[in-house]
Amino acid sequence: MGDVTSQLSVSLDGYVAAPDQSVRDPLGRGGLRLHEWAFATETWRAQHGLPDGERTVDAEVVEEMTAGVGAYVMGRRMFGGGEGPWDPTWTGWWGAEPPFRAPVFVLTHHPRESLPLAGGTEFHFVTDGPEAALARARAAAGDDDVCVAGGGETVRGYLAAGLLDSLWLHVVPVVLGGGTPLFDGALDVALEPEKVVAAPTVTHIRYRVVR
Amino acid sequence: MGDVTSQLSVSLDGYVAAPDQSVRDPLGRGGLRLHEWAFATETWRAQHGLPDGERTVDAEVVEEMTAGVGAYVMGRRMFGGGEGPWDPTWTGWWGAEPPFRAPVFVLTHHPRESLPLAGGTEFHFVTDGPEAALARARAAAGDDDVCVAGGGETVRGYLAAGLLDSLWLHVVPVVLGGGTPLFDGALDVALEPEKVVAAPTVTHIRYRVVR
Repeated sequence: MGDVTSQLSVSLDGYVAAPDQSVRDPLGRGGLRLHEWAFATETWRAQHGLPDGERTVDAEVVEEMTAGVGAYVMGRRMFGGGEGPWDPTWTGWWGAEPPFRAPVFVLTHHPRESLPLAGGTEFHFVTDGPEAALARARAAAGDDDVCVAGGGETVRGYLAAGLLDSLWLHVVPVVLGGGTPLFDGALDVALEPEKVVAAPTVTHIRYRVVR
Repeated sequence: MGDVTSQLSVSLDGYVAAPDQSVRDPLGRGGLRLHEWAFATETWRAQHGLPDGERTVDAEVVEEMTAGVGAYVMGRRMFGGGEGPWDPTWTGWWGAEPPFRAPVFVLTHHPRESLPLAGGTEFHFVTDGPEAALARARAAAGDDDVCVAGGGETVRGYLAAGLLDSLWLHVVPVVLGGGTPLFDGALDVALEPEKVVAAPTVTHIRYRVVR
């Protein structure tokens, strides 16, 4: 059985998304700055079907994070949904060929048929809670890792429940002043930094969750 | 003229001190966890007049942070004072031989005579604001650096005013859930990571403030 991993880009003031989020601007005003480090990398661009890109230490981190992942779990908002029932024609934020290229289990209260898309991504909609979604992802991943893809609340929930084995934080030196906090209260969790990668604009820290 | 530097230990949720701070517990409940990485180091212990200690990468960071410092600036609460006038017998938190071993300029609204203590520390009380305190510290430091020692609000003020050249953040993997935030709103400041030191329990990142 593989690890359950996750990764988040976080601002210096602890936010994983900026203020004024909307359906058109899900990362909030200025929130894209948290992810700019990844956009230029060869690895990220290849996952998104784009050519070129740079072979940087950031690219190596993206590659390491995704290489062993056999399935993903994500929250409904990260797939691209509001709080109501699904519009059956809506296929999420991620376009016709999403970058996951593996089964993705989406946490939701509204049942929906599974949604296979081009490139190997198939979204499955799970209505019986985070542990059930993780169990299904583990079964799909086999010996590979399961990655909790986000958003911040979903990752925090798995971390608080003791279900994560490791967590990459990409510490981005911006100060957002508000938005979605990575944490929203004290959390009794023991994290040990086990790998640190210094990149030009961001610091990548992989934590091991100690039980 | 040297650099104006600072350094803070910060939790993963962005706090530099924990909740429930009091005169007897100035770092708040659990706030000492932010500083444990330093207490075992040879360098910190020597500065505090204590023997032994460990020669770790953490010790090297402490040494690097303090080696070139010719004068300090700090807020009134870090010296050890409430909001009222000084008790003239009170010599601060730092005991008879404070670890600074250099002139320390304390920001306050209440004038007071300078206070020389054992080991080379002399506290000076500055009532005409942060820029005046920095100017006096620069004059005292000569070609050496000036360190803005804290607390968090004081560091944030100098950073926001564009007066810092570099800032060490010691990223400690604890989640405090409240206390004194390193930042309390959006801040338009450009920080570039210029050095990263991976230690067993903490990640040290030195940022350059880009103007």
